[in-house]
Amino acid sequence: MTLGQRALGEGLGTAFLLAVVVGSGIMADRLSGGNVGLALLANSLATGAGLATLVLVFGPISGAHLNPAVSLAEAARGAIRGIDAAVACASQIAGGIAGVIVAHAMFEAPLLSVSTHERSGTGQALGEAVATFGLLAVVLVVPRHRPDATPFAIGAYIASAYWFTSSTSFANPAVTIARALTDTFAGIRPVDVPMFVVAQLVGAGLALLVFGRFATPVPQAAR
Amino acid sequence: MTLGQRALGEGLGTAFLLAVVVGSGIMADRLSGGNVGLALLANSLATGAGLATLVLVFGPISGAHLNPAVSLAEAARGAIRGIDAAVACASQIAGGIAGVIVAHAMFEAPLLSVSTHERSGTGQALGEAVATFGLLAVVLVVPRHRPDATPFAIGAYIASAYWFTSSTSFANPAVTIARALTDTFAGIRPVDVPMFVVAQLVGAGLALLVFGRFATPVPQAAR
Amino acid sequence: MTLGQRALGEGLGTAFLLAVVVGSGIMADRLSGGNVGLALLANSLATGAGLATLVLVFGPISGAHLNPAVSLAEAARGAIRGIDAAVACASQIAGGIAGVIVAHAMFEAPLLSVSTHERSGTGQALGEAVATFGLLAVVLVVPRHRPDATPFAIGAYIASAYWFTSSTSFANPAVTIARALTDTFAGIRPVDVPMFVVAQLVGAGLALLVFGRFATPVPQAAR
Amino acid sequence: MTLGQRALGEGLGTAFLLAVVVGSGIMADRLSGGNVGLALLANSLATGAGLATLVLVFGPISGAHLNPAVSLAEAARGAIRGIDAAVACASQIAGGIAGVIVAHAMFEAPLLSVSTHERSGTGQALGEAVATFGLLAVVLVVPRHRPDATPFAIGAYIASAYWFTSSTSFANPAVTIARALTDTFAGIRPVDVPMFVVAQLVGAGLALLVFGRFATPVPQAAR
Repeated sequence: MTLGQRALGEGLGTAFLLAVVVGSGIMADRLSGGNVGLALLANSLATGAGLATLVLVFGPISGAHLNPAVSLAEAARGAIRGIDAAVACASQIAGGIAGVIVAHAMFEAPLLSVSTHERSGTGQALGEAVATFGLLAVVLVVPRHRPDATPFAIGAYIASAYWFTSSTSFANPAVTIARALTDTFAGIRPVDVPMFVVAQLVGAGLALLVFGRFATPVPQAAR
Repeated sequence: MTLGQRALGEGLGTAFLLAVVVGSGIMADRLSGGNVGLALLANSLATGAGLATLVLVFGPISGAHLNPAVSLAEAARGAIRGIDAAVACASQIAGGIAGVIVAHAMFEAPLLSVSTHERSGTGQALGEAVATFGLLAVVLVVPRHRPDATPFAIGAYIASAYWFTSSTSFANPAVTIARALTDTFAGIRPVDVPMFVVAQLVGAGLALLVFGRFATPVPQAAR
Repeated sequence: MTLGQRALGEGLGTAFLLAVVVGSGIMADRLSGGNVGLALLANSLATGAGLATLVLVFGPISGAHLNPAVSLAEAARGAIRGIDAAVACASQIAGGIAGVIVAHAMFEAPLLSVSTHERSGTGQALGEAVATFGLLAVVLVVPRHRPDATPFAIGAYIASAYWFTSSTSFANPAVTIARALTDTFAGIRPVDVPMFVVAQLVGAGLALLVFGRFATPVPQAAR
Repeated sequence: MTLGQRALGEGLGTAFLLAVVVGSGIMADRLSGGNVGLALLANSLATGAGLATLVLVFGPISGAHLNPAVSLAEAARGAIRGIDAAVACASQIAGGIAGVIVAHAMFEAPLLSVSTHERSGTGQALGEAVATFGLLAVVLVVPRHRPDATPFAIGAYIASAYWFTSSTSFANPAVTIARALTDTFAGIRPVDVPMFVVAQLVGAGLALLVFGRFATPVPQAAR
């Protein structure tokens, strides 16, 4: 694939991911009769199943990072070039915002809206660090030993992490930025975004330290 | 397989799919105590799990399209002949209606009934286009790289799309037509069917443009 | 494996299946606060996940029929001997009853109790025929083409069929007999058992006619 | 891997498992509006999906026992050395307690708290024995015949066993000890821990007797 094709793949894939996250959040919120637990159950299962599918579809097209934390970690360990990571991150962020617009259009809401959903505190910061640490463990280790199971592992992990982390596991800077632009179930106030992103990058960096040695080796030539 | 066997396979498989969709909708509606979110959760999980199984069973018999949008896309890219697609579509539509009758008979409802469930508006039209665009992405790309995962990808995608699209993801003209004939949870008013089908075909066509190059190549001889 | 080992495998596996079905029914009923939809959702997911696991465990030990309808169909098409099917059926029925006793003991209920749960009518009879027809389609076709996916297909099918059939898909004469001996969520009145079993055998027979040709061929010597 | 690496793997993996179990229990309890069935549904699905992922990640690092009952059974049948089992058990218990602390920190609860959740009676003791018997059947038999399916079998089994056993299937002494230190949804009173652990070891021992012969053979040299 060319750099342009991979960029399009990452952008379209992340757009779809945000349409899944935000769209299923709106639907779940509308139908659950005020029961937040039921809404999060639907939202988490829809996200996990949708994400596994997106990794299957976009894996052969662009590698299906769909997440700046993944692209940056792959660049940090020398598996992709810095320019590739930078282009991927830009595509993911732009795609994520486009996905929010699509979700809003499907549900006939204003195309963009600033979230008022507070997500703050050290507990949620730790939640994001743990969530991203775990996600990167999956992304680093599983493709080497069980490439066939990787899409399902990623989907299952995120569905689980919606519940076991206090922050409902954003674990993805592009997703976090895009979700600031939706004043619906899945939103996050813009003021809370920086802490989430910093925590995600800390979690990703720690995972690289702990699990980097178990990842698919990078050919010497590529380093 | 002969053309006749494939036609029977598509008909029987689509009949089973509609029995799953409509039957689980009736059961979920009756048992959920008026909580539409809980009903859709049961309906979506039953449909996703049932659809994955049907693709496993009917894949080796008829290719398990079970969907005119899939058969038409495969004909458009030259993977099957036009006559095969036409026969498949007819079988799918006839089978789908038979499946609705079986569902109604199981639940002791009138064998056919015209739906009064309104599903309209540009938001839902966009929902169907997005739903079918994504389904065709799965159907075009995954069989080439991960044929073993295809049945699970299709089931997981549809379970997810029930939630993230505003239209609950019909994504299938035969399913749409058949669901006009059930005045239950899964129904759709006949007057809303044309817009759904047009949106589905638009979504399928766009997916063919974007993802066709990543699909299993068609031998020159078959074109 | 010897005939005795296979008999023990079928008995122990079916005992576990009934402990799963009846035990999860009791737990779901107690915790769901009277919401039958929520109870059936938990019961169906626990049964589907548990059944897939049991097929993985008992497949290499006894073939993991765990169901007289399956053993009789395999005998009818010449894949196993009549005596093997007869022993398997006896083991399945005895094991199923033992599993109900274990479930009751775990939940500190009387070890056996006659069900008062009415399940009757032509709709439910049709439901059982459809449920078993579909289960046998899975059992006949999937092992030939996708043996690796068979356990998951069986689990996913049954979880789905709990919802799309009006009878909640017993689809198994040994399960039906054993569930007559529990006056809990999963029970069935003894008077309703014969109709269920007949419908199951009719569904299995029809599946053999339609899908037998797509099953793993039986060596001439074994016929 | 060295003994130290394996110990770290077991400790970190079990820490993550407890973060999943306790964290998702807290979230489910807070969001479910008092409906215990809905809370257990979220808790069980999050645990099953998370556990499957952890086995995929920690399998190649430490074997992913994450459970003293598994390590002791492997030592008893000669597959690992006694010293390896002892180190694994210590790591699992220490890791499990660390995981509870992380869960509490994420949800801004006191870092450790003694549970007041009563779990007692012969029914629950039988529940733990059955739960661990079944888990060990999976762990002994499935890796030999279907190593690819093992992580999913373990996750599916535990999600199911949350429902079909009266004790909600702890099935793991390290998990049991750690859960005594959380006064939340997933907790267990310290006074109830010994009975649970004894029952688990009885179940594991019985499984070794019944299913040991179907497990991956231990090379003579290793015995």
